[in-house]
Amino acid sequence: MSNTTETEFRSTSNSVYLKLADDYANKIRRSIPNALTLGNLACGLFSLIMTMNGLHRFAALFVFLAAVFDFFDGRVARKLGYASPIGAELDSLADVVSFGVAPTILAYSISQWSFLMIIAFFSFPLAGAWRLARFNIHPTTGHFVGLPIPAAGLSVAFLALFSYVSPLIMIALAGFMVSKVDVPKL
Amino acid sequence: MSNTTETEFRSTSNSVYLKLADDYANKIRRSIPNALTLGNLACGLFSLIMTMNGLHRFAALFVFLAAVFDFFDGRVARKLGYASPIGAELDSLADVVSFGVAPTILAYSISQWSFLMIIAFFSFPLAGAWRLARFNIHPTTGHFVGLPIPAAGLSVAFLALFSYVSPLIMIALAGFMVSKVDVPKL
Repeated sequence: MSNTTETEFRSTSNSVYLKLADDYANKIRRSIPNALTLGNLACGLFSLIMTMNGLHRFAALFVFLAAVFDFFDGRVARKLGYASPIGAELDSLADVVSFGVAPTILAYSISQWSFLMIIAFFSFPLAGAWRLARFNIHPTTGHFVGLPIPAAGLSVAFLALFSYVSPLIMIALAGFMVSKVDVPKL
Repeated sequence: MSNTTETEFRSTSNSVYLKLADDYANKIRRSIPNALTLGNLACGLFSLIMTMNGLHRFAALFVFLAAVFDFFDGRVARKLGYASPIGAELDSLADVVSFGVAPTILAYSISQWSFLMIIAFFSFPLAGAWRLARFNIHPTTGHFVGLPIPAAGLSVAFLALFSYVSPLIMIALAGFMVSKVDVPKL
């Protein structure tokens, strides 16, 4: 009798532990997509620090790394079945920093002030933010309307790898982002 | 006869011009709230530039100026009857830059690296972004859940005015932002 009870107790306690372990595993799995998105934002912050320390190539590389996180967060979320509205919001907030602000500050730091550069400096991140806000309210499927901000940010970062900044290209990218041109999804 | 036609023509053409003027006035009025929000974002960008140039007090002041824009955009939008979902999205994107990223980079630039500072450097903007994403998905009325990011960003900027950075305060503010504590609306 005592033996049976002990076995029962053991099996109950085992199943409690298993359930706890399962809950934790689920919790961790659920938070992977948002952790990737926060990784994107952290890369944007690192890029800004690299720019501040004059390490322009590293700043550009962190924008690329942010894009890797950005590429995977949505896909992982959908794959695991954990795509959430809060994840989509977080994604936009990370994108405006990593692909809007970080490339703009990088471009500013390796260029001379000029009238065109002032226009580029404001139009690029503001257009990017506008594009992100529009997409969240009017999401499109199958294709994009206007150039997505990661593509624009990566273009500026790529040129910055060669210490090249073109205000005209930045203004054109800003216009392309807020445009209603259909862009195929890769 | 010819006179009447001319009068008719004139009145028609006048009303066409009036309608056009009216349309333009409406369009301008409708874009005021979003222009204020973009002003908030522009202040965040200016703050980052000031930090990069070692002008820490100016960097802090631009965070305060961003808060002025942030204070008015929502109120003006509701007053004019032009509150829009796209405006709310844009507001979050501006806030994460002006009150999350800009104060963090400012704090980084006037402090020494330490273990606590590394935690503060990441937890502060990431918690701010999380808070913004959560608020957009689960908006609250009458009170806030967790400290709003402008209050947290302003606190860091205020201390930076005196060249003071406390990683512990930043970590506490980060925790307060993601907490579920009720905060009364001002």
